[in-house]
Amino acid sequence: MGKEIGITVKKTEDFSEWYTQTVIKSELVDYAPVKGLIVLRPDGYSIWESIKSSLDTKFAATGHRNGFLPTLIPESLLSKEKDHFAGFNPEVFWVTKSGDGDLGDRLALRPTSETLAYTLFSKWIRSWRDLPLKINFWNTALRAEIKATKPFLRTSEFLWQEGHTVHMDKEEAEKEVTDILALYKKTVEEELAIPVITGKKSEKEKFVGAVYTLTMESLMPDGKALQMGTSHFLGQNFSKPFDVKFADKENIESYAWQTSWGVSWRLIGGMIMIHGDDKGLVLPPRVAPIQVIIIPIYYSDEDKEKIQKVSQEIEEKLKIEKIRVQVDNREQLTPGFKFNDWEMKGIPLRIEIGPKDLEQNKVTFARRHNRQKDDQEIEGLVNRVLTELDKIHDDMFADAGKILEEKTVEVSNYDDFKTELEKGRLIKAPICNNPECEEKIKEETSADVRVITDDAEDTNSKCIKCSDQSVIKPLFARGY
Amino acid sequence: MGKEIGITVKKTEDFSEWYTQTVIKSELVDYAPVKGLIVLRPDGYSIWESIKSSLDTKFAATGHRNGFLPTLIPESLLSKEKDHFAGFNPEVFWVTKSGDGDLGDRLALRPTSETLAYTLFSKWIRSWRDLPLKINFWNTALRAEIKATKPFLRTSEFLWQEGHTVHMDKEEAEKEVTDILALYKKTVEEELAIPVITGKKSEKEKFVGAVYTLTMESLMPDGKALQMGTSHFLGQNFSKPFDVKFADKENIESYAWQTSWGVSWRLIGGMIMIHGDDKGLVLPPRVAPIQVIIIPIYYSDEDKEKIQKVSQEIEEKLKIEKIRVQVDNREQLTPGFKFNDWEMKGIPLRIEIGPKDLEQNKVTFARRHNRQKDDQEIEGLVNRVLTELDKIHDDMFADAGKILEEKTVEVSNYDDFKTELEKGRLIKAPICNNPECEEKIKEETSADVRVITDDAEDTNSKCIKCSDQSVIKPLFARGY
Repeated sequence: MGKEIGITVKKTEDFSEWYTQTVIKSELVDYAPVKGLIVLRPDGYSIWESIKSSLDTKFAATGHRNGFLPTLIPESLLSKEKDHFAGFNPEVFWVTKSGDGDLGDRLALRPTSETLAYTLFSKWIRSWRDLPLKINFWNTALRAEIKATKPFLRTSEFLWQEGHTVHMDKEEAEKEVTDILALYKKTVEEELAIPVITGKKSEKEKFVGAVYTLTMESLMPDGKALQMGTSHFLGQNFSKPFDVKFADKENIESYAWQTSWGVSWRLIGGMIMIHGDDKGLVLPPRVAPIQVIIIPIYYSDEDKEKIQKVSQEIEEKLKIEKIRVQVDNREQLTPGFKFNDWEMKGIPLRIEIGPKDLEQNKVTFARRHNRQKDDQEIEGLVNRVLTELDKIHDDMFADAGKILEEKTVEVSNYDDFKTELEKGRLIKAPICNNPECEEKIKEETSADVRVITDDAEDTNSKCIKCSDQSVIKPLFARGY
Repeated sequence: MGKEIGITVKKTEDFSEWYTQTVIKSELVDYAPVKGLIVLRPDGYSIWESIKSSLDTKFAATGHRNGFLPTLIPESLLSKEKDHFAGFNPEVFWVTKSGDGDLGDRLALRPTSETLAYTLFSKWIRSWRDLPLKINFWNTALRAEIKATKPFLRTSEFLWQEGHTVHMDKEEAEKEVTDILALYKKTVEEELAIPVITGKKSEKEKFVGAVYTLTMESLMPDGKALQMGTSHFLGQNFSKPFDVKFADKENIESYAWQTSWGVSWRLIGGMIMIHGDDKGLVLPPRVAPIQVIIIPIYYSDEDKEKIQKVSQEIEEKLKIEKIRVQVDNREQLTPGFKFNDWEMKGIPLRIEIGPKDLEQNKVTFARRHNRQKDDQEIEGLVNRVLTELDKIHDDMFADAGKILEEKTVEVSNYDDFKTELEKGRLIKAPICNNPECEEKIKEETSADVRVITDDAEDTNSKCIKCSDQSVIKPLFARGY
């Protein structure tokens, strides 16, 4: 593979350029003709479909159902909850014309659907019989991004799901918020092999309009934290302005308790950054569009026929087990070119079948993530592929977990905080109760509170900023 | 069920009002706060998911892959193919602002994605190795509707899929256009139990920018034809302006041959209109969100316990066979209320379990489509439910086919044409080669050429409009 085809920079040397080359050259993504917008090519979309399918199964099992909401929201609705609107206002795309005519009221392209959904919920919900209401929407959100486009991480339109639930009481709503975060964590760990830290957002960093926000965060190799999913307890902040009320069994009316939550294709961005290497993508097996690529290797026509036949037989056997497998029979390309090509695309397991292997009834397994190769008997191959794919997943998850652990540090003063920040660490640091300290830390270092873990209480230390008595010890980092 | 809850008009007396009440009261749909836009509630979206899943399986089996395209298209791209742009221009929503700022170039909300997709294809395709390229997108299209909103049929945003393929030669592209129409027909017949007539659109009615358009049409009970899916042969009409070229094995460059095709949630509208009755929805079993509803009937606490237990056992057995089943255990509601409720929602099969049934180890089957009831042994019930659901589908399809056949008539003169049109018929009528006749017929009667079937050639008759020698005998009707 020529330099111009492969990735031309090292991940450790120019992370940003490495990321861009990797997503584009592996054909997951392309830029759309409008600044800030991207397109998903089939391999990229296939990863999203795997994530979607895994989440959909879990949503359905916990009593959620999917629906559809339109893209356009009238300005009057969007501005009904004032904090919420203020948070989104600068990024809203506005439709002002249809055909050659002006619209009477301008329409916002959905930055998120709380206001639209809850206008409807207030019509749909009459009594306790209608609750809980648990709906999810797979759609896109549109938020004008003025900074440089970064596929999956910073785009003006992104694929996501947004769940919206309504409950009779506070406790049930809060349980939903917690359950969903656990469901997200499980999905990210078991499908994408990404370790995450879960907890609460600070008052400053929570969703605009929420009572509180739960989050899962992970640390990227460039030392920036990535928020990978959030689950919001909305309390009655929306049910009051949007009149989401229900009559209980005694026919007494109350405002309902609400939640909203979402993950987006950011998850794919995180997966690429965490697992990729200098050769390109390294895909976790459970979401890889192709899990096993078979490369027939031959130098004579006689061998060719024999080896292509065996390749096809193995492919068919693997397909029966629903393994996503493909034989690379492209003519005029060398095995070496093919190895590089599929390595750049991150295919977890390569099976090489050459004349010498075949003489011994063997094939070669080459693993993408650790680049280890070994011989395998053709007999019993299918089961070994299944085991191997699980093992690759587990290894990738364990490796990433070890790195996250190593990069998570604790400090007790501001100097150490700044030193560790420059090393790209996720930093546990005590702060006091005064929101100004959090504000000043962000101003001075660009680091913010990423997550307040369950065990974050700490009243025995000093605030790294003002030296008053601390209250909590959250995790700080610079963020995406 | 009170009058205000059920459907208050007869399908034959006020079809339009019947349709609206049916889609809203059965909770498939609600209106969004913007004129022209609707929301899908979970039952409505579930039907769309069933259609999607069936198509996705077929698309994948024929080598198509899914991708994602953004909602916003720059004006310059949209206007690159002039006929195409002219066709959509009056219905385009334009984004002119983001936040408080004006956009330099205004952006169209995707009315369809040919122009955007082909800009990308021209970058992605270099040589014969990259062909055929067969991509599908599940998204929405946005086209400002000025007429009254009609859920699933006339809305400013609709869910659909749009397939786009690129081929090396004309023959392969034309085969794709035909294959896709066959795939659509199979899906509509086998999932929605709707009979369709397939063929070509006239020059006047074809997709703007296509060489020709294949279509499938069905006749609705109000005598209007519904276009249920189209497949377009684009020839090189887009590949030339968008520079979609490939180098062949001899390295000679040619413009590629293209197709595009789509079906939308109109299919759901057609299904409702064709199968529904005065009681509300009648859902074909394969797309029904709930296929079987079990109603326990009891008058004593002792019976209640026994009957609920049996209901649950039957539910569990049916679930193992992946039948979508639910027990209606709602308290304080009479069996009669429940019958009406699920009938309005169109659930194909109701199983009633009462004390007398149980004494004989029996239950009652009540079929929604023909309202027939009979006793069934509990022993072997699961297999009988499976058979019954298939039989209900077959019966619904046969009934609809018979009606379509009865309502398809042939005429030889304009007076008969107009008489039959008033009766709501699909009319086979000979016309000449002069497009003005088709134009005038439409002006005078609002009927247009819906579909030119394969056997439409007819040079032995007289044009119903000008009495010149006829060329073809297409099917006319007023359309949605």
